[in-house]
Amino acid sequence: MKLARLRREFHEPLPAVILAAGLGHRLRPGNGGVAKPLTPLLGLTLLERAILSCREVGVETCYVVTGCEKEKMIPHLKELEWQAGMTIRMIENPEWERGNGISVLTAAPYLNGPFLLLMCDHVFDPEILRCLLAARNGMGGSLLAVDRRTDAVFDLQDATKVQVDGGRIITIGKKIASYNAIDAGLFLCQPHLFEALRKSRREGDDSLTGGIRQLVATGEIEAMDIGDRFWIDIDTGEDLSQAKVRLLAGLSKPDEDGFIARSVNRPLSRWLSERLARTSLTPNAITLGSFLICLSGAVAFGGGGYLWNLLGGLLIQVASVVDGCDGELARLKFLGSRFGGWLDTVLDRYADVAIVAGICYGQWLATPTPGVWFGGLAAASGFVLASYMKKEYTLRYGHKLPGSVVERLLKRDMRLFVLFAAALLNRPFEALMLTGLLTHLGIGWTLLGVYRGERRPQNR
Amino acid sequence: MKLARLRREFHEPLPAVILAAGLGHRLRPGNGGVAKPLTPLLGLTLLERAILSCREVGVETCYVVTGCEKEKMIPHLKELEWQAGMTIRMIENPEWERGNGISVLTAAPYLNGPFLLLMCDHVFDPEILRCLLAARNGMGGSLLAVDRRTDAVFDLQDATKVQVDGGRIITIGKKIASYNAIDAGLFLCQPHLFEALRKSRREGDDSLTGGIRQLVATGEIEAMDIGDRFWIDIDTGEDLSQAKVRLLAGLSKPDEDGFIARSVNRPLSRWLSERLARTSLTPNAITLGSFLICLSGAVAFGGGGYLWNLLGGLLIQVASVVDGCDGELARLKFLGSRFGGWLDTVLDRYADVAIVAGICYGQWLATPTPGVWFGGLAAASGFVLASYMKKEYTLRYGHKLPGSVVERLLKRDMRLFVLFAAALLNRPFEALMLTGLLTHLGIGWTLLGVYRGERRPQNR
Repeated sequence: MKLARLRREFHEPLPAVILAAGLGHRLRPGNGGVAKPLTPLLGLTLLERAILSCREVGVETCYVVTGCEKEKMIPHLKELEWQAGMTIRMIENPEWERGNGISVLTAAPYLNGPFLLLMCDHVFDPEILRCLLAARNGMGGSLLAVDRRTDAVFDLQDATKVQVDGGRIITIGKKIASYNAIDAGLFLCQPHLFEALRKSRREGDDSLTGGIRQLVATGEIEAMDIGDRFWIDIDTGEDLSQAKVRLLAGLSKPDEDGFIARSVNRPLSRWLSERLARTSLTPNAITLGSFLICLSGAVAFGGGGYLWNLLGGLLIQVASVVDGCDGELARLKFLGSRFGGWLDTVLDRYADVAIVAGICYGQWLATPTPGVWFGGLAAASGFVLASYMKKEYTLRYGHKLPGSVVERLLKRDMRLFVLFAAALLNRPFEALMLTGLLTHLGIGWTLLGVYRGERRPQNR
Repeated sequence: MKLARLRREFHEPLPAVILAAGLGHRLRPGNGGVAKPLTPLLGLTLLERAILSCREVGVETCYVVTGCEKEKMIPHLKELEWQAGMTIRMIENPEWERGNGISVLTAAPYLNGPFLLLMCDHVFDPEILRCLLAARNGMGGSLLAVDRRTDAVFDLQDATKVQVDGGRIITIGKKIASYNAIDAGLFLCQPHLFEALRKSRREGDDSLTGGIRQLVATGEIEAMDIGDRFWIDIDTGEDLSQAKVRLLAGLSKPDEDGFIARSVNRPLSRWLSERLARTSLTPNAITLGSFLICLSGAVAFGGGGYLWNLLGGLLIQVASVVDGCDGELARLKFLGSRFGGWLDTVLDRYADVAIVAGICYGQWLATPTPGVWFGGLAAASGFVLASYMKKEYTLRYGHKLPGSVVERLLKRDMRLFVLFAAALLNRPFEALMLTGLLTHLGIGWTLLGVYRGERRPQNR
């Protein structure tokens, strides 16, 4: 009973307050003259990014405080509410030209418990919100996300500095003499913030930082270090370019990408994803596109002869690059879905089998012996089973198969690249047999390794 | 912090006390004259079963209270300690001829916290122990597992009856006038039991039930209903036969078994598993055996011609039956391992591909066109991907794909049975193409069904 109550308390979704009232005049030349929250960045407006980051961590209700050019935001928010499946409420702050503390105060009537507070002009890794939620200690205090990398902050002059000592905040302000962290503009707040803001307003300071300073004085707020996670405050066109670079750089998956994915495919797919993000193509459409390119490659291989092999090889390498874009697009535009991941994985396996069929048919035209097809069946089953074996391991053991060189060599990016390179040399079938053989050896090696590991007495 | 503490408290492994001091003279004629705890049942002694049931639920230390013929148990327990990777301590009760409460008291010096208490002559579903552990409420009370099916108990006369009201125990005893439950002989105890047993002993009752009666009087013990889970108290040869029947009946997996598994394979594999249990064959050896039979079947199919097809068909159906025995044996003898399950699943897929290769080669001998091999590649990939798709779904969605008729028809037992039946009619290739086609249709249907389900707005 107690456990259930604690669990509920920790997992109830919090609402979020997003400040989108400012003018953003410094950004105007660079963003086509739209209101700051509507500035596009890799296919999403800054406001969309902020709202979808919240959804990513389980937020179901967003209060967006608008001020300047609010009427332009109404249709955008309506559409977003429908698309994101969230409750989005617009709150108007007629006094938006005063400090941003006033904007927070306009949301006060809607909130009687803890909430997330963020600025719509901050682009950040949603993991930071997750950490804020996880750090909730149930003791009723507020939390401010701070960045200890003071020399890595892009626009230090304009940043709000913080002096922290462990989790305790000593001072906060734009112009404090001594500081060791930067305010990342992401908060987990309690309703006591509103009282602090009112007090600060009475004392003549309308800013959010003024209210936070009141909480610092009473010890009701702590700092949470964001570690090496990414965030940036967008004020100028230069900030916007920097944000784009950082978001694209974050698309690599250092734990999962094989050798070829990292050095060949990722740079190309990132370049492509940046362009695809501006279109309305969905990740599932990219998945299907990559699949169709692979099938065309398979058909080309079936033509037999060097030119067909060349075409087939090129097509499957292109498909391999495009296959990275669906996931990248999903992450860039918060379009990830379990179905999309599932479809992508299953279609990859189908495409692999089609490639094998094409290469074997091309080979059979030259040397019509059943050995070609036995080889094909072996290669196709190897490619599918290398992946199958890993999934089954995860299901049985509850964690991923520990990565190894063998495991990285068995990955699809490597396999398709080898076939592509061999096709350039007019040897796709030989490469197929070799990769097929190596794949089966890798599967056997992996099974044996786990078996041996378990036979050791200490693991019994 | 609080959550972590609660979690620790709930998950720390408890020790178990197993009473194995009795004589079991009523069993002597039926068990070959060995001491009762050493009576074999489906390849394990009753004592092994009790200890391994405890290990199944996370117990790491067992205290076995012996009395009569203890010297025969020493080598058995030594071997078991090594095999099971647990700490097993033998405690001698020189006064074993007095009541079983005295046996429990001899374990008192070793226990200062909660512990499980069970009788070595009770055979039961280990889930009951798991429920006792889960029902621990941290309030310091003891729990007695009771069976509300009073008319289904095998030897009612000898059973200890209980009158319960909700979780509260009113009276307990072998000869009480009114009762609505039976004592299943499985307890979660607190050290206060020892005080209760001493008090009962002073009052002239040396039995465990006497001690329990003291706890009932002070309200320090509650009853936990075991629902429809299986348990039996082994006193006679008839009880032993009954236990065997019940254990074998429990091997079906109503949620997982396909149509053929349920009606054809299970009855045969159960019969076989009962015999295999008496040998020292491990489940992994059975897995390999089934795989090799499948490979022989594949080679036979490759012979071409009716007799070879007949042989191939028979062999794969035999392999399909034997494939059920590894899991059954693992459950019967507590030999299940994650590696075993993993190996079994991966080898099943390899075997499927081998069967396809064999059937295709047989067909190719008659009609040497590449179409045979395209069909083979399609069928093989279908069989592997039908399983792959389901595993990937589980990984992505965190739960199994909801069962459906399509999903049951895609199962391996059905597929191998269809190939077997078609082989009898000398049409294995046609059946292969048909099952391959249906499998791909089933995969497509499943993907589409999930996609449609997610497009419904309420699921967004």
